[in-house]
Amino acid sequence: MFKKISSLLLFFTIIPGTYSFAATNQDLTPVINSIDMAWMMLGAFLVFFMHAGFAMVETGFTRSKNALNILMKNMMTISIAAVLYFLIGFGLMFGDTLFGLIGTSGFVLQGQTDQIGFFVFQAMFAATCATIISGSVAERMKLSSYLLLTLFMTGIIYPVVGHWIWGGGWLAELGFVDFAGSSVVHLTGAVGGLITVLVLGPRIGKYSKGKVNVIPGHSIPIGALGVFILWFGWFGFNGGSTLAADTSLVPSVIATTLLSASSGVVASALYSYIKFNRIDATLTLNAALAGLVGITAGTADVSPIGAIIIGLIAGIILVEVVQLLDRVLKIDDPVGAITVHGICGIWGTIAVGLFSVEQGLLYTGNAELLGIQAVGVASVILWTALATGIALFIVTRFGTIRVPKDEEVAGLDFSEHGSSAYEATNSIYNENLEAHSEFGVGLLHRLDGIDHRKTKPTS
Amino acid sequence: MFKKISSLLLFFTIIPGTYSFAATNQDLTPVINSIDMAWMMLGAFLVFFMHAGFAMVETGFTRSKNALNILMKNMMTISIAAVLYFLIGFGLMFGDTLFGLIGTSGFVLQGQTDQIGFFVFQAMFAATCATIISGSVAERMKLSSYLLLTLFMTGIIYPVVGHWIWGGGWLAELGFVDFAGSSVVHLTGAVGGLITVLVLGPRIGKYSKGKVNVIPGHSIPIGALGVFILWFGWFGFNGGSTLAADTSLVPSVIATTLLSASSGVVASALYSYIKFNRIDATLTLNAALAGLVGITAGTADVSPIGAIIIGLIAGIILVEVVQLLDRVLKIDDPVGAITVHGICGIWGTIAVGLFSVEQGLLYTGNAELLGIQAVGVASVILWTALATGIALFIVTRFGTIRVPKDEEVAGLDFSEHGSSAYEATNSIYNENLEAHSEFGVGLLHRLDGIDHRKTKPTS
Amino acid sequence: MFKKISSLLLFFTIIPGTYSFAATNQDLTPVINSIDMAWMMLGAFLVFFMHAGFAMVETGFTRSKNALNILMKNMMTISIAAVLYFLIGFGLMFGDTLFGLIGTSGFVLQGQTDQIGFFVFQAMFAATCATIISGSVAERMKLSSYLLLTLFMTGIIYPVVGHWIWGGGWLAELGFVDFAGSSVVHLTGAVGGLITVLVLGPRIGKYSKGKVNVIPGHSIPIGALGVFILWFGWFGFNGGSTLAADTSLVPSVIATTLLSASSGVVASALYSYIKFNRIDATLTLNAALAGLVGITAGTADVSPIGAIIIGLIAGIILVEVVQLLDRVLKIDDPVGAITVHGICGIWGTIAVGLFSVEQGLLYTGNAELLGIQAVGVASVILWTALATGIALFIVTRFGTIRVPKDEEVAGLDFSEHGSSAYEATNSIYNENLEAHSEFGVGLLHRLDGIDHRKTKPTS
Repeated sequence: MFKKISSLLLFFTIIPGTYSFAATNQDLTPVINSIDMAWMMLGAFLVFFMHAGFAMVETGFTRSKNALNILMKNMMTISIAAVLYFLIGFGLMFGDTLFGLIGTSGFVLQGQTDQIGFFVFQAMFAATCATIISGSVAERMKLSSYLLLTLFMTGIIYPVVGHWIWGGGWLAELGFVDFAGSSVVHLTGAVGGLITVLVLGPRIGKYSKGKVNVIPGHSIPIGALGVFILWFGWFGFNGGSTLAADTSLVPSVIATTLLSASSGVVASALYSYIKFNRIDATLTLNAALAGLVGITAGTADVSPIGAIIIGLIAGIILVEVVQLLDRVLKIDDPVGAITVHGICGIWGTIAVGLFSVEQGLLYTGNAELLGIQAVGVASVILWTALATGIALFIVTRFGTIRVPKDEEVAGLDFSEHGSSAYEATNSIYNENLEAHSEFGVGLLHRLDGIDHRKTKPTS
Repeated sequence: MFKKISSLLLFFTIIPGTYSFAATNQDLTPVINSIDMAWMMLGAFLVFFMHAGFAMVETGFTRSKNALNILMKNMMTISIAAVLYFLIGFGLMFGDTLFGLIGTSGFVLQGQTDQIGFFVFQAMFAATCATIISGSVAERMKLSSYLLLTLFMTGIIYPVVGHWIWGGGWLAELGFVDFAGSSVVHLTGAVGGLITVLVLGPRIGKYSKGKVNVIPGHSIPIGALGVFILWFGWFGFNGGSTLAADTSLVPSVIATTLLSASSGVVASALYSYIKFNRIDATLTLNAALAGLVGITAGTADVSPIGAIIIGLIAGIILVEVVQLLDRVLKIDDPVGAITVHGICGIWGTIAVGLFSVEQGLLYTGNAELLGIQAVGVASVILWTALATGIALFIVTRFGTIRVPKDEEVAGLDFSEHGSSAYEATNSIYNENLEAHSEFGVGLLHRLDGIDHRKTKPTS
Repeated sequence: MFKKISSLLLFFTIIPGTYSFAATNQDLTPVINSIDMAWMMLGAFLVFFMHAGFAMVETGFTRSKNALNILMKNMMTISIAAVLYFLIGFGLMFGDTLFGLIGTSGFVLQGQTDQIGFFVFQAMFAATCATIISGSVAERMKLSSYLLLTLFMTGIIYPVVGHWIWGGGWLAELGFVDFAGSSVVHLTGAVGGLITVLVLGPRIGKYSKGKVNVIPGHSIPIGALGVFILWFGWFGFNGGSTLAADTSLVPSVIATTLLSASSGVVASALYSYIKFNRIDATLTLNAALAGLVGITAGTADVSPIGAIIIGLIAGIILVEVVQLLDRVLKIDDPVGAITVHGICGIWGTIAVGLFSVEQGLLYTGNAELLGIQAVGVASVILWTALATGIALFIVTRFGTIRVPKDEEVAGLDFSEHGSSAYEATNSIYNENLEAHSEFGVGLLHRLDGIDHRKTKPTS
């Protein structure tokens, strides 16, 4: 935010210099405001659309029996986040600071109606952070528990990180650089996901008798579409973070975003090919996201060549860390979200300290920014891990956060939604045919006086 | 339109006030025009993309055996609408008025070439209105009859409503407020759908022996993608309806759009959970659309809190009315379009009379606007019902509008298109394997000298 | 490009005329630059998104056993193209010309950092050209060979054509008009596809015992989504090619784009209905693309009526030529890319010579432009055919470019990626269940010490 505001100021500062008459300059303000507003709104729309991308990636990369559940998690995350961020999140993030730790004003946009466009843009980011978790906890976390956690995530955990870095808080004061959110959004979401996964445990059948089993997704084309949508939306995520249609900044931001994503894909494909003699589909798709998360912090501060290098490294990190988590640490992250958003988020944030043209170690020989970036990363991890832990402690007071074993085996779509994502094509579904409902089996069962859910044992 | 033009004028009016020199002000006109044009074009692109959303929602929420047919209906609707709206619709809607009832000039954009951008934007809306019908009549209406009806819908029925409200007609004169089309677009489409459904009757198997059967969609992930696309596109639908990158209007429009959709989802999910002990997937997805339709009329006139309340009520209306139509009135609306676009369209239009910050009953204690809104809703319903009835009377002169019973059972994809939407995976499809064709079984059969269609009995 | 630059100049030229003070005019430059930059970036985002469209069209219109492979081809094409176009393509295309044949400066954007936004926009086009090939060679070309060909395509073949026409080369000097790339992008890609298909031969089972078999796609809804995405993106493809938010040009460009695509669909549907007694789904979907390719060259130079006629003819060409290629010439082009991008690309380029309001034969009675257009088309075909031939000669030195017969039968997903795009639903997949992998079967096999690929015979 600090960075953003300075670049914004810079934009306005440059303009007067080019004009001969101060009066003329002043006259242009409403026109410039209009362009900048349009640009930021375009960014907001694209970041909103990323939620379609997350929904498709997470649906496609998991099993069909859990598709409705993951769709609901994504659709409800953006919905809850938008309302909650309006009520309290925006104020906590951008309100008057309390010791650089948290905002304390502007709730319900009180006294901030001129910030309503900025609120919209930021609300989309808050939702993005929260929805990252849904991928990690897919196929086993109860919808209700997930939604409670989402309240904490969008209501307090994310706004605090946001305040520190974009809201004028202590990390902003320190000079920490995270232009569009490698740490603020992606690392925060991934740490929240990691902690929840550690509490939840792996899916049934993922690790059995010391063997690591692969649980493939049910529709990679839909997952691939999700990746394309995310990449498309990322141009708004990074490009819109300029907050202005700034000709000195936006084209460079878009170019570094494009090049890092592209080189992430190329690196991951080549590295997989060398290592496994195959170009793996889901890894290559995830590599685009790895390159995107990697460039997000430094997108406005690195050169195109720097962006290519950041992407190449992100693509290789992805291949190695996905395996490390899965095979060595046995952390079951169905869509690879912890690696993509967490590890590559760390890499992206640290990379600014190396590749920033103005402040990076490789350009200046000075490691100061690198140190600040490390402090920032550590702080975000510590706060998010601690706060998510507390949130989960509270959420688990309401009951187990994991669906019962038999429901997990049957699929969350049947147990949680009484329906299935696809047309019945085999006996498993046909047996439950009466359970399919355009508007919830709940009603049917209620009318029948039977609630199938209650006839099932709970763990 | 009246509202739109006044806000546009307001925008230009404000600017002179901020400038010292009239000469300087005049100089900015081409620049402001350029920004406004870019903004309206962005809106047009997004509204165009809503047709992908409609296609995916309607395909995903119906059965696979009718997928090609519904895709064709959507693809041809936008195509026919664009051409026909150019030829006559735009002139009927925005031409010189005849007693406030219908436009009479500007056909083929004659003498209106400076309005070509505005035409593009409006053409997308005309197509949106027409395509709403395709969801209601899915899985049983003949493609040819549907296309004939589309000619009436985009050529005359919609332009008349549009002229009354946006083209300077009698409802505009009366002070009726429908900023982006809860009534003009959504209610008109839904009433057209309702009348056609009443003529068509329910799908085979929907209501048998007094029992209400559920016919689930075949791919909810594709349907969910459609909802996300529609929501994304709606930012252009409502945001672009400002017709200018107006900083005093656009951010508020986008915020109310976001908040109403979000609260619609939250309300529907909570209400379903309380009522049915389940969060239903298709209802929750439709609730986003309910919130969007609900806010469309008042998006520029209500506060963010007002938008949240409008969305919450739309979400609850959805749950209740979908059941009412299906279980009590036995109106078979496969994708819930009549409720989403019709009932929530009425709610959204009426809600302006309650929640408009400047004219609403709850803010001013004055029910005048509320009354005008009610008159507008009633007029749109009456005209559309009557005109659709007449159109269907004409269309039915060309033959039955419903496919024969055996074709409905076999699926419209085979009978109407001689192909299927998916790869053959079971015996039903395999038997018809030779019927699959990259460019139509028609050719194959023609070459063989056999037309399978003619060997089938017709009802 | 010549055309583009002149229109850009025109835009700036017009403005001074409307201002009284030269000083004030100069002051507006940064504001105008800001709007134009935002517009071009929007165009770039939309063209990027077209890659999602290509991926979905090509995946949906081919068989499920090859879905991963086609997704990888599309995802890697944009990635390789972006990086390579940055390294050399942009310089070859827009650098200082060598005898009007090729650019020789500006590699790695050296000395061209102010062109970084323009580079981004153009990089998306380079990738579009290359990815057209992937559709034609689907289901049988080795991924590695395809990627090598992509290096030639984006590194040299496309940039040369681009230099001739948009980079100030000899065709630009001649007055050749191709506003947004009917020839530059689409014809070049299609000729590359045709030559490769001629080398590859048809898919197994396509033409057997003198019979032409139909190999239907596995998911037309996904293919249809791809068409909608492409159409949506095309507004950026054509609209962004103005390179400025030019009010005198953009609305007309968007209107002609909309009308040509729409009339393409209408013509193809009507023509199919008359000829085959059916409206074919994939033909109708492809007809939208035919209309879009057809209008791309002349979008800024023809009238709305001209656009409708161009689209109508493109829609009919499509129906006839798809059959001609398939049934008479026995050229196996799985998604119809050669017809859509090649034949309709030729038609669109020639159509400028007929329908250009200022220079077209039908308006001026002068065939000069028509002749120039024909020369351009012939030159693009000759160069691309020759260069692709040479590229394939080189690529084939590394091994056969076609997968072995048994791998083609089993599907490229298993043989090339060791996985499948969908959840295992039948015995064929279940047998290979251990081969499914979230990150590549390669690893599993490596750990097992077995490489299944090597146990398979190669043709």
